[in-house]
Amino acid sequence: MADNILTRLRPELASLNAYKVAPSDGYIKLDAMENPYQWSEQLNQQWLKYLSHAAINRYPDPDPESLKLSLQQQFGPQDEDIQFLLGNGSDELIQLLVLAIARPGASVLTVSPSFSMYQMISEMLGVSCQSVALDNQYQIDLEAMLTAIETHDPSLIFLAYPNNPTGNLWSRADIETIIQASQGIVVIDEAYGPFASDSFVDDLSHHAHVLLLRTASKLGLAGLRFGWLAGHVSLISELNKLRLPYNINLLTQLTMQFALDHYSVLAEQAATLCQDRARLTDALAAMSEVEVYPSEANFLLFKVNNMNVDDVFNKLLAANILIKNVSKQAGLAGCLRVTVGSKDENQAFVSALAEALT
Amino acid sequence: MADNILTRLRPELASLNAYKVAPSDGYIKLDAMENPYQWSEQLNQQWLKYLSHAAINRYPDPDPESLKLSLQQQFGPQDEDIQFLLGNGSDELIQLLVLAIARPGASVLTVSPSFSMYQMISEMLGVSCQSVALDNQYQIDLEAMLTAIETHDPSLIFLAYPNNPTGNLWSRADIETIIQASQGIVVIDEAYGPFASDSFVDDLSHHAHVLLLRTASKLGLAGLRFGWLAGHVSLISELNKLRLPYNINLLTQLTMQFALDHYSVLAEQAATLCQDRARLTDALAAMSEVEVYPSEANFLLFKVNNMNVDDVFNKLLAANILIKNVSKQAGLAGCLRVTVGSKDENQAFVSALAEALT
Repeated sequence: MADNILTRLRPELASLNAYKVAPSDGYIKLDAMENPYQWSEQLNQQWLKYLSHAAINRYPDPDPESLKLSLQQQFGPQDEDIQFLLGNGSDELIQLLVLAIARPGASVLTVSPSFSMYQMISEMLGVSCQSVALDNQYQIDLEAMLTAIETHDPSLIFLAYPNNPTGNLWSRADIETIIQASQGIVVIDEAYGPFASDSFVDDLSHHAHVLLLRTASKLGLAGLRFGWLAGHVSLISELNKLRLPYNINLLTQLTMQFALDHYSVLAEQAATLCQDRARLTDALAAMSEVEVYPSEANFLLFKVNNMNVDDVFNKLLAANILIKNVSKQAGLAGCLRVTVGSKDENQAFVSALAEALT
Repeated sequence: MADNILTRLRPELASLNAYKVAPSDGYIKLDAMENPYQWSEQLNQQWLKYLSHAAINRYPDPDPESLKLSLQQQFGPQDEDIQFLLGNGSDELIQLLVLAIARPGASVLTVSPSFSMYQMISEMLGVSCQSVALDNQYQIDLEAMLTAIETHDPSLIFLAYPNNPTGNLWSRADIETIIQASQGIVVIDEAYGPFASDSFVDDLSHHAHVLLLRTASKLGLAGLRFGWLAGHVSLISELNKLRLPYNINLLTQLTMQFALDHYSVLAEQAATLCQDRARLTDALAAMSEVEVYPSEANFLLFKVNNMNVDDVFNKLLAANILIKNVSKQAGLAGCLRVTVGSKDENQAFVSALAEALT
């Protein structure tokens, strides 16, 4: 019976692998775009006091309007036709979106390299996911993208703005052209929005087929697993039918509300990270073996020239510094990705990298 | 564009409705099988102290082995071939199970009346869900069930043990016969296990196609949205490929671990609720217009004779008591379902019901 039962599962499952995460205990952890800053002791105590009234024996609010209102007040747009859909991280919302369009023959389109979960979740759900290669400066190849839209007529396009793992903002005009050309849903994933100089938030009001995906993870709340989609009520209300009732637990609801009530703390941390990103960029640019790419996110992509990239990565590991080796991904030969950490962490990384490159 | 984009969604969505929850503010809330007891002030302070060390700026453990081990130590079985899969409530795990078997032509089988999410989630995912009517004492109609298994060859069978909303444990022999007859996965949903005199936990080791579904919701942690599946490693490891990485947030992981470290508190609450269930059963049995059904859960199903059930429900509402009107569900004409609450809540309900029946 043990083997036989597996024939009942979708055949796609056999070829999938469970997501693996590198062990990180004890390392200076600059691999996952986490915000290095914890809350002050005082703010932490206020948060715990806020949680102390939680009736955790009761089901959470299945559709917390006040939290959604706070999100909209903080992040916009101020447009009553735009509604919010909450998820356990962006991941649950990506899954919901792919499930929503999973008709026979439907497909997803994205670019490569980009956030791996678009492809991975599509595969999990048996939906075809096409990706168009970025150019050698990691910009969108608009002509190839428009051809792919015409060829595949995708029901769902994911565009990360800024992009991960490259860190750059693409041309706004290119994205606007893609939005115009698409007959399907276009999701602008602004996970790294807190560190970027541009946003499509004000475009939502003009395009009922465009959705904005956001997360609290890069704002210093990766442990919370909280994300949200914003878009026109006509589309959000249909997608909401696929949301599991009570999907957001009470502690997450309360903590996110508390964080929004103290948003200036998170905004200051993001501003500090942007300043430190500039310093870190300068430090990497000064290294002759390194080519660092412009970033509007809380991480930097850089290429190691004239050395084996795996050796550099392993020397950093030996120096107790964990970053992300992305060099095996298409278009990223020789590349590593480092999260902007605290000043001390960044300094430790720069010293270790200089050492590794000698 | 606004309307046109909806044609990209799966056609099933148009006929679905988003899950609606009755407003409950200000009512004595006996509608949702919540545990009425909160933790003592002392335990609450210990919990908050435990949370105070949470590095909420970091991603949670993607696969928390120590939490899974604690669950297995508390709930069993002590068998290393049995593994655990964690979810945001049972709901996420039901969704994952239906997704796993969603091949063309695959179907789900359950009984009616039972937990509505089996049917609802199957519909959300476009998978056919058959249900076999229980007999007039809410027992499984074994012959009809075996016929349905032969006819539909379901890839997934859901059996709630005890059943919701009827509260009873079905015949163990019947379930064993169903397990033997099924070529697909059989999920025994023991959400109400803490209040029941029997469990299939020790049967897992003998059947690689049987899974046990559990939740912390009825244990006093409905706000946490935490559930788990237990089953043979050969099946669990395949299902795990469909789990989103980092699906369980840090606060839920820590709170569940804390709750397991203080499990005697939850167990005592469950024991109290079982005693109060007996008292409440007696009080209802003493009412001539009421037929109360035997329950092994933390709720009672009862039928109102010779009166309009909606009138009774509305009189209870007017008396500030919210229970669940299940009388529109197939097989439940005239029936209401009440959660076993605190002694005071139960007394208030009994008094209001007696008044409503006069």
